Amino acid sequence: MKIKAVILNCTLKKSPTVSNTHALIEKVVKEYKKLDVDSEIIRVVDYHIPFGVSSNEGSGDEWPKIFKKLKDADIVVIAAPIWFGVRSSVAQLVIERLDGSYAEGDKKTGQFPLYNKVAGCIITGNEDGAHDAAANTLFNLTHLGCVVPPNVDTYWVGPAGPGPSYIEADGKHHLYTNKTLRFLVHNTAYMAKLLKENPIPTNLKKLIEEAQKESHDPTVMEKEKCLHG
Amino acid sequence: MKIKAVILNCTLKKSPTVSNTHALIEKVVKEYKKLDVDSEIIRVVDYHIPFGVSSNEGSGDEWPKIFKKLKDADIVVIAAPIWFGVRSSVAQLVIERLDGSYAEGDKKTGQFPLYNKVAGCIITGNEDGAHDAAANTLFNLTHLGCVVPPNVDTYWVGPAGPGPSYIEADGKHHLYTNKTLRFLVHNTAYMAKLLKENPIPTNLKKLIEEAQKESHDPTVMEKEKCLHG
Amino acid sequence: MKIKAVILNCTLKKSPTVSNTHALIEKVVKEYKKLDVDSEIIRVVDYHIPFGVSSNEGSGDEWPKIFKKLKDADIVVIAAPIWFGVRSSVAQLVIERLDGSYAEGDKKTGQFPLYNKVAGCIITGNEDGAHDAAANTLFNLTHLGCVVPPNVDTYWVGPAGPGPSYIEADGKHHLYTNKTLRFLVHNTAYMAKLLKENPIPTNLKKLIEEAQKESHDPTVMEKEKCLHG
Amino acid sequence: MKIKAVILNCTLKKSPTVSNTHALIEKVVKEYKKLDVDSEIIRVVDYHIPFGVSSNEGSGDEWPKIFKKLKDADIVVIAAPIWFGVRSSVAQLVIERLDGSYAEGDKKTGQFPLYNKVAGCIITGNEDGAHDAAANTLFNLTHLGCVVPPNVDTYWVGPAGPGPSYIEADGKHHLYTNKTLRFLVHNTAYMAKLLKENPIPTNLKKLIEEAQKESHDPTVMEKEKCLHG
Repeated sequence: MKIKAVILNCTLKKSPTVSNTHALIEKVVKEYKKLDVDSEIIRVVDYHIPFGVSSNEGSGDEWPKIFKKLKDADIVVIAAPIWFGVRSSVAQLVIERLDGSYAEGDKKTGQFPLYNKVAGCIITGNEDGAHDAAANTLFNLTHLGCVVPPNVDTYWVGPAGPGPSYIEADGKHHLYTNKTLRFLVHNTAYMAKLLKENPIPTNLKKLIEEAQKESHDPTVMEKEKCLHG
Repeated sequence: MKIKAVILNCTLKKSPTVSNTHALIEKVVKEYKKLDVDSEIIRVVDYHIPFGVSSNEGSGDEWPKIFKKLKDADIVVIAAPIWFGVRSSVAQLVIERLDGSYAEGDKKTGQFPLYNKVAGCIITGNEDGAHDAAANTLFNLTHLGCVVPPNVDTYWVGPAGPGPSYIEADGKHHLYTNKTLRFLVHNTAYMAKLLKENPIPTNLKKLIEEAQKESHDPTVMEKEKCLHG
Repeated sequence: MKIKAVILNCTLKKSPTVSNTHALIEKVVKEYKKLDVDSEIIRVVDYHIPFGVSSNEGSGDEWPKIFKKLKDADIVVIAAPIWFGVRSSVAQLVIERLDGSYAEGDKKTGQFPLYNKVAGCIITGNEDGAHDAAANTLFNLTHLGCVVPPNVDTYWVGPAGPGPSYIEADGKHHLYTNKTLRFLVHNTAYMAKLLKENPIPTNLKKLIEEAQKESHDPTVMEKEKCLHG
Repeated sequence: MKIKAVILNCTLKKSPTVSNTHALIEKVVKEYKKLDVDSEIIRVVDYHIPFGVSSNEGSGDEWPKIFKKLKDADIVVIAAPIWFGVRSSVAQLVIERLDGSYAEGDKKTGQFPLYNKVAGCIITGNEDGAHDAAANTLFNLTHLGCVVPPNVDTYWVGPAGPGPSYIEADGKHHLYTNKTLRFLVHNTAYMAKLLKENPIPTNLKKLIEEAQKESHDPTVMEKEKCLHG
């Protein structure tokens, strides 16, 4: 069974500027190749992606192209640098644009487009913030439908305070990062295959109807709105 | 196949004080019952659990009892109130004590004791902080070996600022919470069965050896230490 | 003494689209007026602000205009909506662009341009995440030089899950928000005056030199780089 | 004017076990001494502090002793290790217990006991999480009444992944930490003096009354409860 990973590089720097996050992504791609998993890297900032929370913000918006690739992927990996302890604005922009995907729930089950995909996360920074950036990003992806296997965040940061980044600091020889990127690759690949053969069957629409019966919310009638998790 | 969920109530209040978190847990348990999933609720603060990061902090420590139950469970749910926007100290204590589990990796694969278990999260508060508490808690559980299916956090909070809590505010009739608790129950139950039949086979030890070959870290020799993710 | 507040509205929506965050900002402005504090509201997304971490990203960059206003202000307030539990991408973009300000330390003291300014925070969302968004934003502003008085975050969010936003939900009559916005206004105004008359005299450069004497870091020589906190 | 700093060491380890956090605290104390600021270090875990959110949890509770010291201090510093990317359970416990202080607002102004005190933060860990731990802790202290000057968090963490801690890793020679601990000391000391001579005069009670007039909340009548920010 062929598995496909799409990796969104959420660096702030446009091509062809050197990206530390890209350098770490390449190591992940190399490991995916060994497992015969195809990878595609998308550097988000090279595209015209307006701020917004819909899947299509109108004329010139290139998000629909990227979103289509995510929908065709089995594994969705968000790769982001940290700035001021928080994931990059480009990563946040990507998550915001995915908000639009809630509106495209499956007619029958209500499952969102990213349901049954597997999520992973790659974080780089020169000081601190990897746990917070990874935790939020993976959590957001579970809201959108993804499954998070164990140990699917790999990161590199230097010691306390600013300093050289991944490439300059020879991060490619850092054991913890080299170890965790392999865990990420192996666990996302296995889970993607497993879910492809055994997709989660949960009927969200049916469960919402059940929930409505025991709720007093004024939103009871606004079925579609309720999907916007 | 019989599935077992263990739910740790990380309220600050000892029994028999009324716990809002417990009230929400009971709704989760009721839904698990419908799917023939057994649940056990443990109110952590009723036990003597010293601060620490090992699996056994010595004489009088009751954590080993709880940890054994987690190891026997298929689904691990952490239920926590929010205080000051952050998960409760009792929830943090539980996560810290689970640090000790890294030391009990499988002899052959290095997989930690919580590998192939499924995680979920129940959060209550009267104002704000559910996303942060859930994101950190589920993320920590993936580090420890758990799989996080989509939509397995259910929470209740009131509007901005302090106010009545779940029970007093009639949270049991809140649609969003009633909907998400069902998603949690169905998705954790499905995933637990799937993983029981198809456990993740990743050999962490082998991957660490591979990683060591391309790393310069002084930690290369400290194999065991490296597992302490 | 005349005090000036600049409030950056970090909504994702361009003018003239209705902004819930703007509605809450207006209440803050009204209170500032009572204390004779001038306010200027800047809707960041109406300007062309490229991603980046410098104070000037070149041709067409409108950030320098905004940055100049911040430097002329006594009070800097960041107003941001929450998306997926995290401050908006526009708010993160603003913080990232402020990274460039570290490079403009005072020749003698090394103090950054925002030193001795007072920070505040306005957060809106329809569900959850205000504490995390406010904590990160105010913290980042202290790194950049601002002072944070007590109770200078005001926020509005609805109960658990998506639902109507500030305007639709009649947030303007929500007591907690109406109370905290007054705390914000009074405490930032008082502190701004106090600091204008009694600026923090700390000589960062001298302290860095002291620190270098007891440090082994390879960065000892990279004085300028070390300022990039 | 004599200034007093109380530093709460929120390590998980009881005396006399070696504490990395304590080692960093000692450097802070040394710098305070140079400025003639008295410091007192309290290792919280050496006391019997039950979980709870009141200022006195009854017989045997030693929190009131510590709380009294905080009330007598001019500078309140919370020093905490990071576990799993989050501040220690002991630090969270301290913040939770401070919740009780809201109930002791000044009869006339409603100001909480920590109003006009200055906050600082010391964070240690062996991998990552300092920004999140410091941001939450300083933010919580502003809710409780403290002022946060610029650059009053000092931290030490090693590079990505677990590894040696502050003492073993020779953190005392790390430039960034040595620099930021001086910023912390100088800025908290200056601000403490400034506030002692010029306390924030804001009358919170009066502002709450004003807010009530334009609010519809059912909590309008629950004046005291409304203080519980």
